[in-house]
Amino acid sequence: MGESGVNAKWTASRLLERLSAIGADPAGGVTRLLYDASWREAQLAVADLMREAGLEVSADTVGNVFGRLAGADPSAPAVLTGSHVDTVRSGGGYDGALGIAAGIAALARLKADCGQPRRTLEVVSFCEEEGSRFPLAYWGSGNVTGNRPFDGALDARDGNGTTLRAAMAAAGLEPEQHGRSCRTDIGFFVELHIEQGEVLEREGVEIGVVDAIFGQRRFYVTVEGRAGHAGTTPMAIRSDALAAAAEMIAWLRPAALEAGGGLVATAGRLDVHPNMPNVIPGKAVFSLDVRHRDEAAIDAFCDQARLGFGAAADRHGVSASLSCWLAEPPSPMDAALQARIARICAAKGYSHRTIGSGAGHDAGLFAPLVPTAMIFVPSRGGISHSPLEFTAPEDVERGADVLAGLLHTLAYGEESA
Amino acid sequence: MGESGVNAKWTASRLLERLSAIGADPAGGVTRLLYDASWREAQLAVADLMREAGLEVSADTVGNVFGRLAGADPSAPAVLTGSHVDTVRSGGGYDGALGIAAGIAALARLKADCGQPRRTLEVVSFCEEEGSRFPLAYWGSGNVTGNRPFDGALDARDGNGTTLRAAMAAAGLEPEQHGRSCRTDIGFFVELHIEQGEVLEREGVEIGVVDAIFGQRRFYVTVEGRAGHAGTTPMAIRSDALAAAAEMIAWLRPAALEAGGGLVATAGRLDVHPNMPNVIPGKAVFSLDVRHRDEAAIDAFCDQARLGFGAAADRHGVSASLSCWLAEPPSPMDAALQARIARICAAKGYSHRTIGSGAGHDAGLFAPLVPTAMIFVPSRGGISHSPLEFTAPEDVERGADVLAGLLHTLAYGEESA
Repeated sequence: MGESGVNAKWTASRLLERLSAIGADPAGGVTRLLYDASWREAQLAVADLMREAGLEVSADTVGNVFGRLAGADPSAPAVLTGSHVDTVRSGGGYDGALGIAAGIAALARLKADCGQPRRTLEVVSFCEEEGSRFPLAYWGSGNVTGNRPFDGALDARDGNGTTLRAAMAAAGLEPEQHGRSCRTDIGFFVELHIEQGEVLEREGVEIGVVDAIFGQRRFYVTVEGRAGHAGTTPMAIRSDALAAAAEMIAWLRPAALEAGGGLVATAGRLDVHPNMPNVIPGKAVFSLDVRHRDEAAIDAFCDQARLGFGAAADRHGVSASLSCWLAEPPSPMDAALQARIARICAAKGYSHRTIGSGAGHDAGLFAPLVPTAMIFVPSRGGISHSPLEFTAPEDVERGADVLAGLLHTLAYGEESA
Repeated sequence: MGESGVNAKWTASRLLERLSAIGADPAGGVTRLLYDASWREAQLAVADLMREAGLEVSADTVGNVFGRLAGADPSAPAVLTGSHVDTVRSGGGYDGALGIAAGIAALARLKADCGQPRRTLEVVSFCEEEGSRFPLAYWGSGNVTGNRPFDGALDARDGNGTTLRAAMAAAGLEPEQHGRSCRTDIGFFVELHIEQGEVLEREGVEIGVVDAIFGQRRFYVTVEGRAGHAGTTPMAIRSDALAAAAEMIAWLRPAALEAGGGLVATAGRLDVHPNMPNVIPGKAVFSLDVRHRDEAAIDAFCDQARLGFGAAADRHGVSASLSCWLAEPPSPMDAALQARIARICAAKGYSHRTIGSGAGHDAGLFAPLVPTAMIFVPSRGGISHSPLEFTAPEDVERGADVLAGLLHTLAYGEESA
């Protein structure tokens, strides 16, 4: 691949700037919820940019937008890159949008510098990943891969009671045809994304080579004791639900550090009843979120938690029950692609390291099906899902450069990867 | 004192039954808030009962109602008994009301059986103790003792924005004259009350001889860390406010048990921010309530908590600050009166034990001024401030009997106590 013969207009930073201006909200953030007005404006802008970049544009039945650079070998499975256009409420301008902007920039540059690829190259702007409007996530990539159970999804309702079906119809889409978005001609998937953590920034590393998207398991832990008068109930005869829950939550950090391997365990939510200063809590419910690259490690940690929580409950004369409401297996990234990204970084002089992704991504849906890769760039302060989300333009360009390099080796190279 | 020559109408249980029917609420509880309609109905009923019992009735400027049996020696300070007529919202029929009903029954019985006492005997129905309507407590006994700072109290507002001043005026009282309720002619104060705990019930003991009303100290502990993504922030670099708060709360129980002497420490309220399953908590605020009969022990525990919380905060890379918003000193009960109650119980064959009061009571305001005593009877299941509050009629009668016995020795005896 030659050096940047492409117009400066087609840098990832410039495209990202245009995309992030759509859905700007009063809080200084970006809000683009599935099928709302900002979302439609964004997908139209994406389509325009793709067309300007010389790509063939199409949209599928759920509103994913594709830009295509047809390959010389129509029988070779395509190389797909991209990310999601939707945001959380008052999110930032980088999460999702970066992968789309960098994908369009990469295809524009590859077309200008290298002409027609052997394999078809496509960039996608997935309609939805965040689950911010409807209680479902990965509606974009899940319909493309077809490996997500979406039974009853069309009847899901947003906060105003609007069904997904009605929202799709209002956006001119075909709700009942969402299954037709499934693609079987994809050979590779590559996603550039912000890290959303602060590992790269703290270590001063420019590029993260993702080895796995962590599996996740989420529980609610319900601790039930007996409410009582905070003054008249001796310590020895209390069944204090919060005291027991506190022991369980305090156990998490040392246990996760001991488990090691990057396992993270979080109690993010805790609701106490009746939650009054002078009443011993009769009930406490907390969330537990456990993530790791290795499912067996998640299993082991959750088993240990169950035992530990039971023992704490016994010590406090309370009951504790765990109910699992989300279980996502880990998605290992393709080892050969990881090695290839590392070689590209080395050749370009970019510092890099292997990193796990504690957050879920569209790439996770492709990983069980085709060789899949993710490239991370630093997030300032590790902040995401916030108006404060920021990645420096030079980091955006380094990430886009590595992405273009990888797409080049996949689509133009002789090797089959 | 002779054996019950008095009419069965004047048993404490019967009077209590009449009083508890006033302010019955749809939840099956009793709601009498300061100066509301139920409260007025209750004080009128109390006055009627006192009159029927042959007592001289009067009310003071804040609506405390007194029933008086004048003594032969007008220069001897009076013996006062009683409790408060107000309740929490949807409370029970025993808290407060028991002490009034048993006081009226005792004076009726003493008058019938023993005639005129040497010292004046009075029973009082204090207007307020619970702090359920206005953000102030002990408005009844505090005005009688004059040892409570009530600056600005008349401007306090209830949940509807009504000032205490307006509520008093609406009840026909004299707000600006509340200081005139102060009494300097009281020589003894005795209060019969339900335990509100389950120590007597668990041990099968009939009468509790209170040695002290515990001092209380209440804090809010604010723990501030840094919110972050639950998936992408490694354990080692988190500043998790809830993880730190959990360690602090988990510390309380073993520390309180080790402190011993009946010290109780409770975290009853905990609010987490932003309180979402997939976000590391950036802030957690919990209440800490510490009570004990000995102020030095409270000081020592709070100092230890401060140190322990600071160490936990350091381990988690968060800050912790304690702000004290309530500090009540302990109120030791008169030792000679405790011994006298124990002798009365022994003579009557009632099992008894010394017990601390973790809850505050009107008696606590008299204790620094005059010899003061409290008598406890069992609370079923330790439950109070609830429609489920219950004390068996035979326990009510035993308590009333001990109360009458003590009042007899104080008002009719030659000894000066």
